[in-house]
Amino acid sequence: MIKFFKYNWQVRDEWFDWCNLLTPDELLKDRRGGVGNILYTLFHIIDVEYSWIRGIQGKDDIAFPFADYNTLEKVKSLSDTFRNEIVVDLKTILEESREELVNVSWDEDKYTKDEILHHIIAHEIHHIGQLSVWARELDLRPVHTNFISRKL
Amino acid sequence: MIKFFKYNWQVRDEWFDWCNLLTPDELLKDRRGGVGNILYTLFHIIDVEYSWIRGIQGKDDIAFPFADYNTLEKVKSLSDTFRNEIVVDLKTILEESREELVNVSWDEDKYTKDEILHHIIAHEIHHIGQLSVWARELDLRPVHTNFISRKL
Repeated sequence: MIKFFKYNWQVRDEWFDWCNLLTPDELLKDRRGGVGNILYTLFHIIDVEYSWIRGIQGKDDIAFPFADYNTLEKVKSLSDTFRNEIVVDLKTILEESREELVNVSWDEDKYTKDEILHHIIAHEIHHIGQLSVWARELDLRPVHTNFISRKL
Repeated sequence: MIKFFKYNWQVRDEWFDWCNLLTPDELLKDRRGGVGNILYTLFHIIDVEYSWIRGIQGKDDIAFPFADYNTLEKVKSLSDTFRNEIVVDLKTILEESREELVNVSWDEDKYTKDEILHHIIAHEIHHIGQLSVWARELDLRPVHTNFISRKL
């Protein structure tokens, strides 16, 4: 499980580097599919990961309006800040049973911690796949996202 | 690990159903990004999964030219056939140590069985993310791919 988180974080950082090829307007330009633009995709991935990790721990959800984080630097900084917390929290979560049901404010259903961890992982990989199509639409080579060769 | 395989297979079957909304020409139409068209994406996912699972078991790679499988029915049938084999093989693979290095004909590097299993899983989710963008370009709602709620 931890290898997938490390994979997602490594690939995400490579996309942050890739984003430097684009202007702020291109990062925020409306695109078909996904959540609508490149920078918001990265913000959304980070927000979803952080919310669910807090949810697993029984902590309240904190709202982070995208309007306050709509530059590459701010989204990258948010990712770094949350990751420092998540690295520690995840260690605890993975050491304990993951069969406990979790109740969160934004969803009526309950899910096991294990189900939520799988969800966070698949969610990020799915959205990163969307970025790769938008990259080609911009005539740019997407980040190489193979899992193998990363020695995670 | 097995939950991610079950997730990918369930989502893949939902995309096969979704493909019935399209004509054969639309399924094969050139698109920007990914591996270039919708049907070949599904074929490629299946081919990569099967090749690596055989590789883990030390079996020879078998070439399946897309030209022989370029209809929705044939690709779905290939997916079903391979899955019946993989379900059994995966059970054995997951019961044994996954730290052993694997040598395959199409790659000079060696990877652990564990690394390859992670690769297969992330590879499919990534390409499915690409299908979701192409679906919106066709003004169609993509398959809902959340991991939670699937009770896997």
